[in-house]
Formats: sequence, C-alpha cells, structure tokens
Amino acid sequence: MTSKPFALSVRIVLFDQHGHILVLKRSKSSRTNPGKWELPGGKIDKDEAFDAALKREVLEETGFQVVIHTAAGTAMQETEEWRVVHLVMIGSMMSGGLAISSEHEEYRWASPIELGGLEKADWFEEYFRMYLQAIPAAPKESTGSE
Amino acid sequence: MTSKPFALSVRIVLFDQHGHILVLKRSKSSRTNPGKWELPGGKIDKDEAFDAALKREVLEETGFQVVIHTAAGTAMQETEEWRVVHLVMIGSMMSGGLAISSEHEEYRWASPIELGGLEKADWFEEYFRMYLQAIPAAPKESTGSE
Repeated sequence: MTSKPFALSVRIVLFDQHGHILVLKRSKSSRTNPGKWELPGGKIDKDEAFDAALKREVLEETGFQVVIHTAAGTAMQETEEWRVVHLVMIGSMMSGGLAISSEHEEYRWASPIELGGLEKADWFEEYFRMYLQAIPAAPKESTGSE
Repeated sequence: MTSKPFALSVRIVLFDQHGHILVLKRSKSSRTNPGKWELPGGKIDKDEAFDAALKREVLEETGFQVVIHTAAGTAMQETEEWRVVHLVMIGSMMSGGLAISSEHEEYRWASPIELGGLEKADWFEEYFRMYLQAIPAAPKESTGSE
C-alpha cells in the first residue's frame, strides 16, 4: 500500500466557438509529463479555495480571466511524491488574451478527434478516455457559402 | 448568471464484500435534502486538506476509519447559498464499527439496483446516474449449499 500523500489539482475545460478545447503543451524541462499536452490548471495552494486556485492558475497559464460553471469529472496521477487528484471544471473565457507562460511551450484549440491524436499527460489521457472521447464531432462547417 | 460562491465537498464510496455501497439517510430536519439518501462525506473546512476532511467526515458519520484509494467523478448541487462541487473518492474501511451520527437517521448497504430505487439527495441522484447505474449486479450467491 502506498503512503504517498494526496494533492488536489483543479483543471479547466474551455471551449471555443467550434467546440474545440484549449490544451497546453508542457515544457520539455517539466519534471512530470515533459512535452505532453494537458488542460490548463494546477495544484491548489495551502489555504486557497479551489475555485480561486483554478482562476489563478488559468490566468497565469493562458492570460484568460474565466468563470467556472460546473464540475466535469476526475482523473488520477501518480508522481514520485504525490497521488494527485485532478478535479476538472467546465468554464468560459471572460476577458484577457491568450498568452502562455514558460511552463508551456505551445497551445492548441483541439477538437475531440485531434485530442485523441495528441501525446497527452498521463492523467489527461485517462480523463480524455473517460469523458471527452465520446463528445460528438461538431458538424462540418459550410466551406462554400462564406 | 449566478453569483453564489462555490463550496467543495468530498464524498466516499465504500463497498462491502457483496459489492454493496454504504449510503446514509439524511435527517428529516436537514436543511437540504431532508430524508434523502446520500454518500458519507461533507464540506471541507477552511485550511483543511481534502483527504483529511474526507476521513474526518466519514469517521464522524459512520464510525469507520478509512483509507482513500482513487477519485471517481463529480456531481453538482445548487443550494440557496452555494454551488457545491461533490468530489467522490473510492475508499476502504480500515477499523471502527458502524455508528451513524445525528445528521442521519438510517444506513443501508445497497446494491446498485437497490440504490436506483432509493430517494436520493439531488446531487447523489445525478452521481448515481452518471457513475453507479452501470455497475453490473454481483453474481447471485448460491443459496443451497451454505
């Protein structure tokens, strides 16, 4: 039986107008999941409310001020030191402009199908399979009339 | 748009040897969901780690000391004052004996099918439909040979 402590991380699913989801590619120098794609968010600081933590992390990592709507599942991650619970919330962008931090090296608005093909962080792969894979593809947009 | 604050609650799924789940019936004098069935657990106190909060609440409500294994989804609840996120964990009983508190008036080890028929707290009804309904019934035990 493991005696590693638990940590709680909060993550956000942000959709654009096409139903694509904002994902960030972790820096190659990250200690865990280097170069892998993930959802914005991160660990809750001591004495910090989970929604305040999520807003802080998302602003730091994406430049967006967000509102949080609802909870949308969980995923687990085992690191050398921690058993991390990722609590995933659905949110919307309110203001700000996309600007990623040094923690990540790339961003993408990915459709559920594109997400399937990305190399994802271990916990996000689990989350994707449980919760996102089943999202139907958006209807093809007309390319002729606009 | 609501401006109610978020609150985070942690809940536990405890299975017995038959695959039945421990559920508690809220007191008829409860402010929310009176007389309805729910999973053990409750709100995280300020400055409390989520796993410590869950162990504390489960001990208070069931008399069991538990270990926590893994995260198993979320459900939302809207009360007059709060938007409550219920983070559900799977755990096991380590020690102690079942003794419920005044917050509840009854307990039951319920199979997923029995759970379907109970009057559940609003958030637990949502959780049940999303996560528990699909659990296959345990194979019928032999009644002749024992």
